[in-house]
Amino acid sequence: MPNGARMSAEHPQPRFVLMRPQMGENIGAAARAMWNFGLDHMRVIAPRDGWPNASASAMASGAGRLLDEAVPCADLDAAVGDCSWVVATTARPRELNKPVLSPEAAMQEAAARIAGGEKVAVLFGPERAGLENEDVARANAIMTVPVNPAFPSLNLAQCVLLAAYEWRRATQAVVARVEAPDESGWASAQEIEHLAGHYEARLDEAGLFYPEDKAAQMKLGLRNLWSRLALTSSDVRLLHGILRQMVRWKERG
Amino acid sequence: MPNGARMSAEHPQPRFVLMRPQMGENIGAAARAMWNFGLDHMRVIAPRDGWPNASASAMASGAGRLLDEAVPCADLDAAVGDCSWVVATTARPRELNKPVLSPEAAMQEAAARIAGGEKVAVLFGPERAGLENEDVARANAIMTVPVNPAFPSLNLAQCVLLAAYEWRRATQAVVARVEAPDESGWASAQEIEHLAGHYEARLDEAGLFYPEDKAAQMKLGLRNLWSRLALTSSDVRLLHGILRQMVRWKERG
Repeated sequence: MPNGARMSAEHPQPRFVLMRPQMGENIGAAARAMWNFGLDHMRVIAPRDGWPNASASAMASGAGRLLDEAVPCADLDAAVGDCSWVVATTARPRELNKPVLSPEAAMQEAAARIAGGEKVAVLFGPERAGLENEDVARANAIMTVPVNPAFPSLNLAQCVLLAAYEWRRATQAVVARVEAPDESGWASAQEIEHLAGHYEARLDEAGLFYPEDKAAQMKLGLRNLWSRLALTSSDVRLLHGILRQMVRWKERG
Repeated sequence: MPNGARMSAEHPQPRFVLMRPQMGENIGAAARAMWNFGLDHMRVIAPRDGWPNASASAMASGAGRLLDEAVPCADLDAAVGDCSWVVATTARPRELNKPVLSPEAAMQEAAARIAGGEKVAVLFGPERAGLENEDVARANAIMTVPVNPAFPSLNLAQCVLLAAYEWRRATQAVVARVEAPDESGWASAQEIEHLAGHYEARLDEAGLFYPEDKAAQMKLGLRNLWSRLALTSSDVRLLHGILRQMVRWKERG
């Protein structure tokens, strides 16, 4: 697997290990879900229908490379023996002495360990039965998705999707930012002030601020509006243009 | 929709609105994904194959109630006209003047607004084409999943799953906690201290701490180990029992 080794060095990441997966379609969907969030190291332990699997490849479409490079393994030792941190995904409560982590906490820990040079694996069980207790006993921690207890039935690819999503969240610096909606960027306070002044002056000429004892309050309300709107520079230019056009239209009589 | 109204009052939540969905299977999978995270208010605008949809119901299985109670709507006005905050999910960058939020930020804002008594809707577009610009223009904000730019192809049910997952994260008080792995709870510092003392005394008798000039360092290392292990009270009892058993075994000669 020279390709996998090369990518591993370039983009250190956890290995996603599918234990005894049954349907090829689910293996393919898991590959897609991984690659949706930039993960491409898959291992497959004892797939029911052998390896390679044509229906997995058909389902994977754009993520087929992950299956070509996936390492089929005979058992858990072969798949995670070189890892110093293994987290097992399971929905069912276990009577095993393990910390139980949310996907977010698990992927944050994975990211921290990988940044420190460790090898990390995330284990996913077969579709219906899930991981056996003896498999979970080999893991350092358990990852459980906080599902609705009345309807906890996540499928394999959905579990993989949520883990991969949390990996990307844990490793992307900024995901919750509010981007300026156009290239001009957010308007500066000075731009807003000029805009407010322009409107106030023209609307004063136009007789908007009437009666006189309400004028100050109305002007303040208008100024407040401009600053509340989260305008971009481009919005501000447009609003100046609108007002100028109205003035021209009026002046043409 | 008396049922929906009742649940809405009991569990305030965003409405998930599917615009012009095509495949019934995807509508059913979206219903499952919503109910996995406790959401059950769906609206469907102009589904391609009419309403109700047999293949949607077949796919929804345990979440079929959501489809029975889903409100089919003729257009966006009917679906979100009474909402004061609408967020549109779209993967493609748009030239529209809207804040772009991560799923986490969007669901946090949704939760805050709903807690304040507002009605909120999350819009999802049709499978291939996604939302039209004119639909997105009606929304207050855009939600974009931070996918791998080289492979951004999330399907409808996956988008719904990630939004529903973030809704649950935003509204569940504790999801990242580390639960004690058994009912006995984490061992107290005093329990750890007694355990360390017990082992140190017996192992000293057994002659472990040798040579003498290394003994203090070895004892410190052992004490450090016990406190680092995140033991439960039940683990501590077991470790005491193991040591007592070794001593009995030795004393039997």
